[in-house]
Amino acid sequence: MYVVCVQVHVKPEFVDDFIRVTRENYEGTRQEPGNVRWDFSQSEDDPTRFFIYEVYRTKEDFPKHQQTPHYLKWKATVAEWMAEPRVGTRFLNLYPTDEAWNV
Amino acid sequence: MYVVCVQVHVKPEFVDDFIRVTRENYEGTRQEPGNVRWDFSQSEDDPTRFFIYEVYRTKEDFPKHQQTPHYLKWKATVAEWMAEPRVGTRFLNLYPTDEAWNV
Repeated sequence: MYVVCVQVHVKPEFVDDFIRVTRENYEGTRQEPGNVRWDFSQSEDDPTRFFIYEVYRTKEDFPKHQQTPHYLKWKATVAEWMAEPRVGTRFLNLYPTDEAWNV
Repeated sequence: MYVVCVQVHVKPEFVDDFIRVTRENYEGTRQEPGNVRWDFSQSEDDPTRFFIYEVYRTKEDFPKHQQTPHYLKWKATVAEWMAEPRVGTRFLNLYPTDEAWNV
């Protein structure tokens, strides 16, 4: 499993729009055969900050995701809504083991 | 669902010990009725950096986790292995909806 963590900081006036549009990206991404998780959450302390936890079966499935229509539409739509650049960090799964994910 | 993200930076000489001991915390935590996910991964770029993605059914389940024997043992064991203080961030789940998590 290949893990991508994305931290997002949105301009306050676009919080509702961002949630709506990101839901569409979530729904599209979960249809990708290489995607096993795409969890979207909002900071408890600051509603303009979000976290996306993305898990793919392999490293190669992530660039495939980045070429999908739902991702490209999302990327273009939210570009002007960012309060600062998104921060993405990539990890290699340790536990549960890949075999234990049962997805 | 209540999400806790933990970023960990370990002293290089303790990387293997940290993985071993954190596995035990993972195994204990996944037995807690309030825990639904506890994913443990290692940075692709820097093997001394780790990420733990913890999900609980409710906010109240997180402090319960922090009182468990497996957590307290882990906390004490890894204390001297940290290269810098751990960073924890808390989020409220948006998507998938709580009902859709199927856990």
